[in-house]
This record gives sequence, structure tokens and C-alpha cells, in this order.
Amino acid sequence: MAYIDLGLDETVNPGIRGLLRYRPETGRPLMELAEVLLRGPSTLSRGEREMVAAYVSGLNECVYCRNSHGAFAAAQLEDGRPLVDQVCDDPASAPITDKLKALLQIAAATRVSGHDVTPSLVAAAHDAGATDAEIHDVVLIAAAFSMFNRYVDALGTLAPTDPAPYEAAAPRVTGSGYLA
Amino acid sequence: MAYIDLGLDETVNPGIRGLLRYRPETGRPLMELAEVLLRGPSTLSRGEREMVAAYVSGLNECVYCRNSHGAFAAAQLEDGRPLVDQVCDDPASAPITDKLKALLQIAAATRVSGHDVTPSLVAAAHDAGATDAEIHDVVLIAAAFSMFNRYVDALGTLAPTDPAPYEAAAPRVTGSGYLA
Repeated sequence: MAYIDLGLDETVNPGIRGLLRYRPETGRPLMELAEVLLRGPSTLSRGEREMVAAYVSGLNECVYCRNSHGAFAAAQLEDGRPLVDQVCDDPASAPITDKLKALLQIAAATRVSGHDVTPSLVAAAHDAGATDAEIHDVVLIAAAFSMFNRYVDALGTLAPTDPAPYEAAAPRVTGSGYLA
Repeated sequence: MAYIDLGLDETVNPGIRGLLRYRPETGRPLMELAEVLLRGPSTLSRGEREMVAAYVSGLNECVYCRNSHGAFAAAQLEDGRPLVDQVCDDPASAPITDKLKALLQIAAATRVSGHDVTPSLVAAAHDAGATDAEIHDVVLIAAAFSMFNRYVDALGTLAPTDPAPYEAAAPRVTGSGYLA
């Protein structure tokens, strides 16, 4: 049960879903941001971007966001859930490109503090082939999930631990997006 | 100089301003969120909400956001800059209401982690007269500045230390808002 009265059934609208309905004036720009960052035109695939979101949410121990975006990443990546779990556990040893590893290092540093992202981390990403636009977007995904994770946990919203409801939501989100 | 090539003069567009121009697709929802949270209808004044933003940004040592929102708060509060500085230094001893003190404690906890906001912090805010809507919005302001602070610092954007340019920007932002 959330710490404030959302006026709805949280078992039907867990996590951020209840908050988006409680305050649609803030919900709309939040979902527009998610739509552009995670699904808009980009040289990073939708699955890769959802994986960055799941990785940051896992480091922040945000059960709702880790499970949601892990399920959305798995549904859009060829190697599915095993790859997502491997990346979230230890990106350095996961079978992903050096570019994605360097971008995940930037995401992990951003999660701790903006001040933890150093010129050498950015140079390593450039050396591995990352573009400025990719670095920008990965920083903003990590920063945005530093917001989303705090938002759902600070208000004590419901976060099912069973993966089934997140997997059930994946076709809707990956098919129709965050604004549907 | 930012870590990525923003294609503009950062002395004219420091901090987040250069990033909003670099990537307007994400800039628009970010500014819509700021407009609703900091200037939209609320039982918290615009000055109080800008003060929460300045307080969180100070704790995150984000020079650009602390100076910007400190200036915007000061311009909209009767006691101006001295009050803002006192609140940012030590809210417990500042001459503000118990309700605002309790909300600032929730903001400080949210900044650290969503998991640091406890039912007792929320109960203390309720006891001091805070509404559910006020608690929701303060949590989301603190979460949003956990994003904005990371965004500007992780990309190494320019942050003048002189207060003058921030004070010069205050009439525009407090008069026309974040979408102008």
C-alpha cells in the first residue's frame, strides 16, 4: 500500500502506474520522456535502452522498475531474459559489445552521482565507438531512472515480486509504447 | 566545456540550457515536468517549491541547479536569498513552518534513496499538516532533481560560480516559466 491515498486499487495499478493515474499532470511529461528515451529514434536498439533502464533500476534495488524494464528488455532482445539477467548481474562478463559495456559504465557512474562520470569514462565510450548522441541518451536514461526509482519507492507503491505480471505487461508496452 | 559536442556556445547556454537545445525531443518533456511541478497549481507556493529544488541540488553539490533554483526561490519569497541560504544550510533551524521542515526531510531522504523514505517520515509530514498531494509533489520534485542534477553534471556542462548570471535569469523564468 502506498504511503499516500492514491484512490485506486494498487493490485490493478502497481508501481508507477498508480502514480501516473493519481497525478496525470506530471504523468504525461514523465511518460513522454520515457517514450522518447526508450522507444524514439536512436542508434541504440529499444532492447538495449530498456536494458540500461533495468540495469540502473537493479543497482537502485527498485523491484518494480527492475522487473518492468527487465521484462521489456527481454521481450525485445534476441537472447531475452538470460542476457538481461547476466548484464544486470555483471555487465563486464556479459556477451555484449565493448561499446555497450562502456555505456553501462557511464550509466552506473551517473546513478551514483553526476560527478562520478569522468572524462576518461566518456573517452573510453568514444574509443569503443559510442557517439555523442548515444552517450547523451544513456546518461539521461540513467538520470531518469534515478528519478523513476526514487519516485515509486519513496511513495511506497506496490511492487509484485512475481515476474508474471511484468511479463504480461510487456506485449502492451513493447507494442504500443508508454503513451498508450 | 561539456564532455560531448553540443554544437553551441556554452557561455551563452550553460548547464541544462545547452542540453535542452542539443536534444529538444527530451528537452520538451523535461521542461513540461518542471513547469507543472514548480509553477503549476499547488497549495505550496512557487517560492517554496523552488526552495525544495535548490535544497536537493545543494545536497547533490550541483552548482548549476543549486544556483539557478536558489535564485528563482529567492525572487519569489519575501525573505529572499538569506532565507534560501539558511534553509539550504540547515532547514531544521530555519524560520519556516513545521510542515515545510517535514517536507524537506522527505525530500532529503528521497535524494539519498527511495527506500530512505519511511512511513514515520510521511506520518510526521501529515501530522504537521501536509496533504497527500503536497507529499507526492515534494517527493517528485526531489526525485526529478536527482535526475536534473545528474544530467547536467554527468555531461560536464558549464556551471558559472558567480551568482550574477543566475539572478539575471530569474525574472525571465519566474515571469514566463520553463516553457518560454
